[in-house]
Amino acid sequence: MKVLVTGIDGYSGWPLALHLLARGHEVVGVDNFVTRRRVKEVGSWSATPIPSFPKRQEAVRELLGKEVGFYRGDLGDYEFVHDLLAREKPDSVVHLAEQRSAPYSMIDVHHAVATQVQNLTGTLHLLYAIRDTCPRTHLVKMGTMGEYGTPNLDIPEGSFEVEYRGRKDRLPFPRQAGSWYHWSKVFDSGDVMYASKIFGLAATDVMQGVIYGIRTPEISDRRLLTRFDFDETWGTALNRFIAQAVLGLPITVYGIGEQRRGFIALEDSMQSLRLAIENPAPPGEYRVFNQFDAAYSVNELAETTARVAKEFGLSPIIEHPPDPRVEAEQHYYNPVHEHLPALGYRRTRDLEEVIREIFHDLIHYRRRLEARRYVVQPTVQWRSVDSRPAIEARVPHTPPPPSAGPSEPTSEDPST
Amino acid sequence: MKVLVTGIDGYSGWPLALHLLARGHEVVGVDNFVTRRRVKEVGSWSATPIPSFPKRQEAVRELLGKEVGFYRGDLGDYEFVHDLLAREKPDSVVHLAEQRSAPYSMIDVHHAVATQVQNLTGTLHLLYAIRDTCPRTHLVKMGTMGEYGTPNLDIPEGSFEVEYRGRKDRLPFPRQAGSWYHWSKVFDSGDVMYASKIFGLAATDVMQGVIYGIRTPEISDRRLLTRFDFDETWGTALNRFIAQAVLGLPITVYGIGEQRRGFIALEDSMQSLRLAIENPAPPGEYRVFNQFDAAYSVNELAETTARVAKEFGLSPIIEHPPDPRVEAEQHYYNPVHEHLPALGYRRTRDLEEVIREIFHDLIHYRRRLEARRYVVQPTVQWRSVDSRPAIEARVPHTPPPPSAGPSEPTSEDPST
Repeated sequence: MKVLVTGIDGYSGWPLALHLLARGHEVVGVDNFVTRRRVKEVGSWSATPIPSFPKRQEAVRELLGKEVGFYRGDLGDYEFVHDLLAREKPDSVVHLAEQRSAPYSMIDVHHAVATQVQNLTGTLHLLYAIRDTCPRTHLVKMGTMGEYGTPNLDIPEGSFEVEYRGRKDRLPFPRQAGSWYHWSKVFDSGDVMYASKIFGLAATDVMQGVIYGIRTPEISDRRLLTRFDFDETWGTALNRFIAQAVLGLPITVYGIGEQRRGFIALEDSMQSLRLAIENPAPPGEYRVFNQFDAAYSVNELAETTARVAKEFGLSPIIEHPPDPRVEAEQHYYNPVHEHLPALGYRRTRDLEEVIREIFHDLIHYRRRLEARRYVVQPTVQWRSVDSRPAIEARVPHTPPPPSAGPSEPTSEDPST
Repeated sequence: MKVLVTGIDGYSGWPLALHLLARGHEVVGVDNFVTRRRVKEVGSWSATPIPSFPKRQEAVRELLGKEVGFYRGDLGDYEFVHDLLAREKPDSVVHLAEQRSAPYSMIDVHHAVATQVQNLTGTLHLLYAIRDTCPRTHLVKMGTMGEYGTPNLDIPEGSFEVEYRGRKDRLPFPRQAGSWYHWSKVFDSGDVMYASKIFGLAATDVMQGVIYGIRTPEISDRRLLTRFDFDETWGTALNRFIAQAVLGLPITVYGIGEQRRGFIALEDSMQSLRLAIENPAPPGEYRVFNQFDAAYSVNELAETTARVAKEFGLSPIIEHPPDPRVEAEQHYYNPVHEHLPALGYRRTRDLEEVIREIFHDLIHYRRRLEARRYVVQPTVQWRSVDSRPAIEARVPHTPPPPSAGPSEPTSEDPST
């Protein structure tokens, strides 16, 4: 099949391209390199060095013997999107080209507006361009499990059978997102659902859990590695925890750390997207996949990180500064994920094993972390000016325990 | 109280300003006059002539002895919005400054994007400006009953108690909007709900039914009249039906005409907004009012129009061209509206009586309708190119019945 990957230069776009090529699919990508620029803007970089796109293509050619098609351009330009789809007419479009950082969207009004405007515009442009040039193309659009928030109910896959005042209907499950970014994803979901209805488009909306890891079986060489962001804006909590451990900083768990979220290993997320692509929705169907593998609390991530860190001679302490986000710190969390297993999804990676693999890579690139160690600790406040004083009263840092001294990495490291 | 009305030059903004002034409130307005320009762009105008804004202010001064404050500016400009709120620090902001036409949003990809981007941006700008300059200000934001779509359930006011798989929670009621415009309103609702939570803002989200009528008790003189749009883009179905009747054209009911929606008279909508302003939500509360008075089917609107038309010597026929919208033509519809009655809302106007009043005004401005008669009939298609052939197979027009000839207007006309 021919697959167009928007955002191919990004964290999941790149490994997806490699995975699809390895499975015999044809891959064409598009990117405007905005993530590279924005990570630089906050003074950070990827812990794994990312070659220029032509060098990435060259590595794919040499190491996998495959070609990746590429267009440099912006989905905010409708003529570009239209002409790209008219020329390529892919079987599937996997739409990953969105502003993907919740903290970035919370910086100020301009970042809030930019996030929502850019994400909505790109998605609407794709929907119309598919309608006008290749209406049979299957759109796989990246949403997030964060769209649902943390209701005190099981979370179904997109929609549910409701009974209310004696009548029944199947309705979209209510969304309660927790950042302007997460709301932009909710809005995109609404637009894709509606386009599917009025244009008869085939769409799979992926409620993506938090992805962890930097390797897949296709990433056989460091030249093929994907990004690892660890600053507070672009890195996930787990990424920051591992970076903190490698840098000898305390692991900072916001609040009491019982916030639970759905997670999935990079390799298993690629497997899931491939299953969606190879088993497309029929025309006019809007289907939703909850794409995660297991739910973990932030404390579980921190504790697993600290445990694995010890294997590498590191002994991070775990701190609990106040939560800068406005979220429930303790809550019920039981999302359903049945659609992907029904298509053959099987978990292949385990959290602890992937964390070990990340430590191995990060220790290799330790100097790149050291050079940007000032970007790791959180500063963005999510609340109103009114509530700032309460938030800024920081919990005093507990003094670090006496160091056990560096020990040898154990042979459990799967990458050695 | 001091009230800032965004979109004060518009269809409901202007009568709201008059109503609030008459009740002793202080009113400051803002507008960028985009509705005037956009109506002109589609080759139309308001059947009621709308004076320039300075002339409107002058009429208020002469006829009501009041001053309306005014700023010309665009909510897309954050500095403008911030400085306006910092200077005025109103008790309430009534946010009506949005692209308000569903057909306009369906014209093409650029109109879809413009609608969603402009509406979201203006609302986000207001939310941040309130947070930063007057965090105790109560925001009354205009949504639409159309956000809910037509589920096969009762429609509560914003949120509902759900039981699912043995657990319960109060959740936002799922939204299933029917145009890019209606989705933009859903998105605004999400942003306001979230801002209320993280910034502690007081917000009333008005799920507005379709408003009908051009007069309120404050509109004592033709110089104070509000807009009456009758073209397919800016006019409501009822407005078009009345214009069609006055012009001797057939009344065009899309499809079988059993689509039901919530309606409210202009005067009663103003009453409702005033009740929301005078009884503000407390800080941090996001409350939703379903602001309509009664539900009517399109057929009921057409039949009432045709019946009242006869009193004016007109004898329109009712035609049923295929529905260009993608919507259920027959459906359950039972929205709840309890919050406003609890604040003292009482219906003061009745559909048939208001239609009679509109006929009276439109017959007065008949020549303005005649000069734009070509804009009344529908042309915008809402579906994909694929389904166009089926839609364009028009139902043959039934020949007009023999005319009964013009008869005298009856004395039932309340405006004579």
